[in-house]
Amino acid sequence: MAMLIDGTPGDSVSALDRGLAYGDGVFRTLRLRHGIPWMWRWQYARLRDDAARMRLPLPDEAALLDELLQLGREHASAVGKIVVTRGVGARGYSMVAATGSTRIVSVSPWAGYPAAYGEQGVNARWCELRLSAQPRLAGIKHLNRLENVLARSEWDDPAIQEGLLLDQDGWLVEGTMSNVYLLRGAQLLTPKLDCCGVNGAVRDWLTENVSSFGLEFIESRLSAADLIDAEAVFLSNSLMGIWPLARLGDKTWSPSPLLQTLRQALLQQA
Amino acid sequence: MAMLIDGTPGDSVSALDRGLAYGDGVFRTLRLRHGIPWMWRWQYARLRDDAARMRLPLPDEAALLDELLQLGREHASAVGKIVVTRGVGARGYSMVAATGSTRIVSVSPWAGYPAAYGEQGVNARWCELRLSAQPRLAGIKHLNRLENVLARSEWDDPAIQEGLLLDQDGWLVEGTMSNVYLLRGAQLLTPKLDCCGVNGAVRDWLTENVSSFGLEFIESRLSAADLIDAEAVFLSNSLMGIWPLARLGDKTWSPSPLLQTLRQALLQQA
Repeated sequence: MAMLIDGTPGDSVSALDRGLAYGDGVFRTLRLRHGIPWMWRWQYARLRDDAARMRLPLPDEAALLDELLQLGREHASAVGKIVVTRGVGARGYSMVAATGSTRIVSVSPWAGYPAAYGEQGVNARWCELRLSAQPRLAGIKHLNRLENVLARSEWDDPAIQEGLLLDQDGWLVEGTMSNVYLLRGAQLLTPKLDCCGVNGAVRDWLTENVSSFGLEFIESRLSAADLIDAEAVFLSNSLMGIWPLARLGDKTWSPSPLLQTLRQALLQQA
Repeated sequence: MAMLIDGTPGDSVSALDRGLAYGDGVFRTLRLRHGIPWMWRWQYARLRDDAARMRLPLPDEAALLDELLQLGREHASAVGKIVVTRGVGARGYSMVAATGSTRIVSVSPWAGYPAAYGEQGVNARWCELRLSAQPRLAGIKHLNRLENVLARSEWDDPAIQEGLLLDQDGWLVEGTMSNVYLLRGAQLLTPKLDCCGVNGAVRDWLTENVSSFGLEFIESRLSAADLIDAEAVFLSNSLMGIWPLARLGDKTWSPSPLLQTLRQALLQQA
């Protein structure tokens, strides 16, 4: 792995960084294809919006992109990660004394997921953990991710690729590492992320692009039963792209040609 | 500040530490008086319980205490902090690949809070942020503290020492950095911490000791109105000890001799 800390090669941060002390920061994980960050426009837009909601200083777009290009140029396929924290602060929760920030950019070579996950679909399970409701943080990819850690620790069967999460009221939210979508006729339904969940870059891409495929993008309250009844279900994030859901417990879904069309279009996005 | 990282002098941690990536760890803040960690028995018990609930490896008690004593011996009054994370892990939320841990022990000289806060009481306000409900993490002093950061950023008036927090259903939980208690006759009432909040070491001490002062320790659902109607209200944490609440908005409370007795007893605890 190659890493730049505030633009300088390094692999460590201050033990007083508020990213460590409080999870006071945001991050993005993204794919690099032949050294080029995939979906950069959507990734940076998400980072910008998340940082603004957290009142974090936002790194310059050109500087961030340059660092990713610099670290990724030797790899045909790689994973990049950007972490932006509120930097080193005085003791205590107040952000007033924390005027700086820390920027961590790293890139690792990555073979990618098995092609079958995207082409034939994946297996998922329901997680027992219910996500908590916090409108002030909902949608943000911040560094407080203990719920994801706990949810992901519920299974270790490698035949299960993702766990699906409900909120405390039983509404569908997302996967542990992905957004989730239902196809119902010409509707592409996805949970509202106003109380919990992470808004992914691919989700934004879908918002802008699904109408080209004759689909209406609808944010809604969705139940587990809605998901089971859907004609097709899929997951998205910036590493998997789109994964159709093939099985969830006893329920199976047949391959959806429309989903493959959508998936290929996403992969062709710069 | 003096610091030991896994027992070795240092001031930085790996940028891949899960404490930074996900807030995957726990911490304690404590006071050292003439180099001796105050309330050590209760502090370590809390750390042990929190680590167990998070399935974190627990540092050896003697080793931790030795490190605090080593760092604190030159100071008449100091603040110590212990952070234990799940260490460096592979990419992804799963804790399976993370077999290690990182232990950060630091001590800084500290003059203490103004004596008047404990003797005459402090001023508080209500925070607008409502704490989210997550039973799996409730009570644990983990590193996912963005709610505290956001709540503490709601005011910067130095005449206000603490902000009080309600949960999403409007029940009283705690202060941004303290537990909260109500006196009503012979009852010492404090919020249940089964859905959110942090269980402090002083709270445990009170659980064990208030019966000596003719008080019954009761965990309960408490409303903002219950707090306003209480004969006395106080806050606790391991740095403040006990602070009586003197004012909250328009409401004021007279000094309570019983609270001062309790406060002095706590300060005399080793």
